[in-house]
Amino acid sequence: MDVYLDNNATTMVDPVVFEEMKPFFCDVYGNPNSLHKFGGDTHAKMVEALDYLYEGINANDEDDIIITANATESNNNVLKGVWIDMILKGEKNHIVVSEVEHPSITSVCHFLEKMGVEVTYVKVNDEGVVDAASVAEAIKDETALVSIMWANNETGKIFPIKEIGAICKERGVLFHSDATQAIGKIAVDVQECNLDYISFSAHKFHGPKGVGGLYVRAGKSLTPILHGGEQMGGNRAGTVDVASMVGMGKAMKLAVDALEFENTVVRDLRDKLENAILKLDDTIIIGGKENRTPNTILVSIRGVEGEAMLWDLNQNGIGASTGSACASEDLEANPVMNAFGSDSELAHTGIRFSLSRFTTAEQIDYAIEKIHGAVTRLRSISSSYAYTPKHHVSEL
Amino acid sequence: MDVYLDNNATTMVDPVVFEEMKPFFCDVYGNPNSLHKFGGDTHAKMVEALDYLYEGINANDEDDIIITANATESNNNVLKGVWIDMILKGEKNHIVVSEVEHPSITSVCHFLEKMGVEVTYVKVNDEGVVDAASVAEAIKDETALVSIMWANNETGKIFPIKEIGAICKERGVLFHSDATQAIGKIAVDVQECNLDYISFSAHKFHGPKGVGGLYVRAGKSLTPILHGGEQMGGNRAGTVDVASMVGMGKAMKLAVDALEFENTVVRDLRDKLENAILKLDDTIIIGGKENRTPNTILVSIRGVEGEAMLWDLNQNGIGASTGSACASEDLEANPVMNAFGSDSELAHTGIRFSLSRFTTAEQIDYAIEKIHGAVTRLRSISSSYAYTPKHHVSEL
Repeated sequence: MDVYLDNNATTMVDPVVFEEMKPFFCDVYGNPNSLHKFGGDTHAKMVEALDYLYEGINANDEDDIIITANATESNNNVLKGVWIDMILKGEKNHIVVSEVEHPSITSVCHFLEKMGVEVTYVKVNDEGVVDAASVAEAIKDETALVSIMWANNETGKIFPIKEIGAICKERGVLFHSDATQAIGKIAVDVQECNLDYISFSAHKFHGPKGVGGLYVRAGKSLTPILHGGEQMGGNRAGTVDVASMVGMGKAMKLAVDALEFENTVVRDLRDKLENAILKLDDTIIIGGKENRTPNTILVSIRGVEGEAMLWDLNQNGIGASTGSACASEDLEANPVMNAFGSDSELAHTGIRFSLSRFTTAEQIDYAIEKIHGAVTRLRSISSSYAYTPKHHVSEL
Repeated sequence: MDVYLDNNATTMVDPVVFEEMKPFFCDVYGNPNSLHKFGGDTHAKMVEALDYLYEGINANDEDDIIITANATESNNNVLKGVWIDMILKGEKNHIVVSEVEHPSITSVCHFLEKMGVEVTYVKVNDEGVVDAASVAEAIKDETALVSIMWANNETGKIFPIKEIGAICKERGVLFHSDATQAIGKIAVDVQECNLDYISFSAHKFHGPKGVGGLYVRAGKSLTPILHGGEQMGGNRAGTVDVASMVGMGKAMKLAVDALEFENTVVRDLRDKLENAILKLDDTIIIGGKENRTPNTILVSIRGVEGEAMLWDLNQNGIGASTGSACASEDLEANPVMNAFGSDSELAHTGIRFSLSRFTTAEQIDYAIEKIHGAVTRLRSISSSYAYTPKHHVSEL
């Protein structure tokens, strides 16, 4: 049986989404900026897609939603836009992020630090979440931007975006959230949270890869990352990828409609899997069970190297992750687990299981069986596990 | 009958290409950077796609081809990469481009000028082409980069890339070409032309929208435009859009295989259409007939406003253009025609017809009939045409 439990890395395109996209490859292929009917024929579905996106995040009509290649581009656009518009001009010189942002935030920060920008990396608390108070403390007169993820890709922990939004508004600082892991899992409301910008990628909520969005509050437009033609009101040049935009719109609509399903049926399956794993000795949920997206588990299984576990599960048709696929090639310890200050052995024992609305009960039963088998097998050949005191939860 | 003659704006995805892409939406959807089989299952087709891209432009194994969202991103990456790597560091401070580049070059140049970079816009000659000698003249000690398009999007005129490449090599200046309008129409060989970088977009050669390429010669890597994960060797972050990459690879393969067809059958159809238009009084080919891509016509029809002509043709199912779709929304005069120094009336009379390997003889016969009808109709209601001396070619 094939069991895909790596939906925080990427998701299957919903077949309903793909049906919406299909006409825009070989049939309705005009450039939407062209003045003839081949271009014009794309417009109705593009408008519908934009409507779905606006509704999905509660954007106002005056706000912009820029269609980008992915959340990475959106994140780069916000940070580099602020750098060019405010920091290079000498108005401000400071950015605040959390220490557990996705590489598409932290790598940009490292680049900007080389360019002379000051960046504060706010630490997470015992539960792997930044406190709003810590963000407030990090803000100073020179702060141009606060960028805090909505939900963590590794743990699923949900960050206090509403509270941070209120603080940023009060302090007059721009506020961005990478909402990539939030959309389709929890409600995302840019008004309620006083957001100036959010980023998202369609492929995290059963849309296609290669397309994402950047929400921009009215009046808060940024220097584009892609200069060129007048597409997206001059905010993002390049021929609009109509199929992908239509797919992302439909995926947003379906994801928002499925939020209740996600938070009942998917959550129950996740909990079933999680409780079965926790029945094994020496297992803990990193960051704890509270306040998480309903599809995600990051578990540490002492004595089991994450990579070995992945390999074993993969042999049985189960796909999981030791952390972000965006960093998986270099086999480094999971940075989010490092942020917990856990010892280096523990940091290598994390396994992430992330479900979706397409995960079935049958698949979860199968996964439970195979996970139990893998843990038993791997612990039996572990050189260190036998010496590890049991029930290490109390040590943390 | 529907007749699509706007292939320089965008093309239909070849149904063979779409077949290659299809599995990567709902079936083989893993993140290629993941370590499980859902990711691994994508690899063979991605390697094949890269092979097609390398072969298509004669890249060496040591060189990079970075998968981007489109040529606009590739162009932005080259110009802004050079800005960050060489100009912000004070090594150099000058870029040379032609005055007829695509907006995704010229808009970046305008941005860089605001940031203090000096840009020289080399003028085109009477035939709408930059002379290699003019480029040589523009290069100075401070020059970091020369960026000259391979073929012009409006006229189809082919630029002396090989000669300019030799000059840049001799002068020790980086050389980039926007090859967007060349690939699939003429042979593109990055070795023969001493190129350090080229840009292209799949949707101009019957691949999907939303994906493009950036060729980077070995040892000439640039600061990425998208920082983040380790995808593309750290040169372009963001989850790889497997379907689009596979589609672009296949499209490149088919386009290169079809080059002879393009330069015989498509060229003959283009010439048939062109000769039929030139039988009308007061029509000229902008830039002349020599040394063009085989699919493109930019014709001026005196007394006929380009937009009115487009509208009339559109009523008859024919899609054409007054110039780049990337600038069409603002209805400005065609900048390429302005570059010829033509009077403003003439600049508004340009119509571009661009064919593809899917254009049929029947469609061309139909287009000829409708174009003749449109010109007669529009000239009969023109307030100025009756007063215009006939055979205005001699005036230019």
